[in-house]
Amino acid sequence: MTSAILVDATQLEASVRAALRNAGASDESVDATTRALMHASRVGVDSHGVRLVPHYCKVMAGGRVNPRPNVTVKRTAAATGTVDGDNGPGHLTSYRAAAFAVELAREGGIGAVGAVRSSHLGAAGAYAVAIADAGMIGFATTNTDSVVGLFDGTKAFHGTNPLAFAAPVAGEKPWLLDMATSSIPMNRVLLYRSLAQTLPEGVAADTSGHATRDPHAAEMLLPLGGEGYGFKGAALAGVATLFTGILNGTTLDHEFIPMVGDVDVSTPRNMGHFFLAIDPERFAGAALFADGMRRYLDALRSVPPVEGGRVMAPGDREWDVETRRAAEGIPVDPDTARFLGLSDPA
Amino acid sequence: MTSAILVDATQLEASVRAALRNAGASDESVDATTRALMHASRVGVDSHGVRLVPHYCKVMAGGRVNPRPNVTVKRTAAATGTVDGDNGPGHLTSYRAAAFAVELAREGGIGAVGAVRSSHLGAAGAYAVAIADAGMIGFATTNTDSVVGLFDGTKAFHGTNPLAFAAPVAGEKPWLLDMATSSIPMNRVLLYRSLAQTLPEGVAADTSGHATRDPHAAEMLLPLGGEGYGFKGAALAGVATLFTGILNGTTLDHEFIPMVGDVDVSTPRNMGHFFLAIDPERFAGAALFADGMRRYLDALRSVPPVEGGRVMAPGDREWDVETRRAAEGIPVDPDTARFLGLSDPA
Repeated sequence: MTSAILVDATQLEASVRAALRNAGASDESVDATTRALMHASRVGVDSHGVRLVPHYCKVMAGGRVNPRPNVTVKRTAAATGTVDGDNGPGHLTSYRAAAFAVELAREGGIGAVGAVRSSHLGAAGAYAVAIADAGMIGFATTNTDSVVGLFDGTKAFHGTNPLAFAAPVAGEKPWLLDMATSSIPMNRVLLYRSLAQTLPEGVAADTSGHATRDPHAAEMLLPLGGEGYGFKGAALAGVATLFTGILNGTTLDHEFIPMVGDVDVSTPRNMGHFFLAIDPERFAGAALFADGMRRYLDALRSVPPVEGGRVMAPGDREWDVETRRAAEGIPVDPDTARFLGLSDPA
Repeated sequence: MTSAILVDATQLEASVRAALRNAGASDESVDATTRALMHASRVGVDSHGVRLVPHYCKVMAGGRVNPRPNVTVKRTAAATGTVDGDNGPGHLTSYRAAAFAVELAREGGIGAVGAVRSSHLGAAGAYAVAIADAGMIGFATTNTDSVVGLFDGTKAFHGTNPLAFAAPVAGEKPWLLDMATSSIPMNRVLLYRSLAQTLPEGVAADTSGHATRDPHAAEMLLPLGGEGYGFKGAALAGVATLFTGILNGTTLDHEFIPMVGDVDVSTPRNMGHFFLAIDPERFAGAALFADGMRRYLDALRSVPPVEGGRVMAPGDREWDVETRRAAEGIPVDPDTARFLGLSDPA
């Protein structure tokens, strides 16, 4: 990222679309994947943004991901349903499932949708935000392949298993939490490795299961809470597995073909996700909800910060980045820029 | 706790009932509060177990908690409802709400219930377990008064705001996660203070907002994730506030009369909770769910532990404690034992 170039969002979006179309993706697949990647790149979640385009093109070419899926939606009860992704892009399945959850919640007060035969969905927050944009509390989660250790365990077991929540805020962008249940992502370890820097404490472990600050010795991530309280982060990762792989009968974290590396890219991974939409109208009502959110955010933002710090509500950082990038452009790393035809080939 | 006495569960339960009845609680209030407190004391969550009986008796005498409430249930849509606790014991309202969520989920696939005009509910896990015992995934949460700091903040803002999840496991006690969104509870700080011991790193902060290991300097708890990643724990605390105070239009964390201390015990606190029940039958089906849970737990428990450690699934520790205490008795601290008439008055 040292020589990332800044690209205008409109131009970047067009390049992403072209690359996905070129890889054979159907119109609706192109739309959904581009929307999800641009969300992540706009708000600064670069690990889950446009840098994934080459990967998605590769797995569509390989057969792991079906570029032209026939996604089907099934209602299973008054407030629940499932979406079968037909092994297509996780983004298409996930936006479909999020919209379905909202539809169910309009009628039932809450809607819960499980996705099966899906694939990597990018940033889970994209779908929580889509639900919040419909005026509801949104929750989105997925499991992924094993890279995070258990508390007191000597090998990776859970994925980075994100929990994403969003809620509408009157006159503002949504309240947004999109967190991995590890302290840092694996990419961060690789970055420290390439920079030959020492890792922060309690974020990664070696093969003995003990925390290490040597990025070369790091074999797995530690769950949120680190060496002292990582049992909480590990259990939260398990919540993601419970709501996705176990509830949907899809692949469990430890059963996944790894996402990246020298691995099979021809076999679909049958990834499961879970989406929840809750309509405030069926609880205190939209007006009281908006008032509570306002009092909450005003009080939170008025807490005096530590010297040199800033007290932020979940999402404040992301929406700040979005504003800055709208003005300055979105940073794209050299490899991805080259792949997208945004820079001269090296 | 140094001179705690071990009391047989049946005898302890009878003493708790007698004390609550003596404080004027209605039969259903006695039943619900006793059930919740005994759950916590059986599984080792002593901070939320029978030691709270004197507190509950005090707030019922003071008027904060209505000992004989008329709890009412209202369906607001196909899969949602609210429970008005009439300012009674939080346990009664919460068990009622959890049962209502299950009832809604039987029909709608998922059921979400918000509780209003409630009070302290003890351990949130008690209600998640009640839902799991009905064969569903359960989620229970509440907000509480401010004792936990924000990331980079200089004063307490959120409560310890628990997130509790439980899920049925064929042939075993439920998968159970009942976690505060701080690393440790405030009681633990007080314990370190009385023992004049140094606190673990990153669990508490002083008035400047910086982490401290001096229990006497500790003014607030730090959110899960500590100094480096506490923004995640703080946001998870916010999730609890979002689903309870904001969604239900009840008291926000920073607006609460503190639970304990030299405070008003005559004014009801209008505490809100939230409960979710999800029926696996409407997703992959109960058989596939049970199979996934089995594969998940078997794989998790077969991960080799670090030297001297033990790899546990969420709940394993709690149910082990339950088994041990069923044989050996439940430890009751001297003050509570005296209050319950289980030891000679000092």
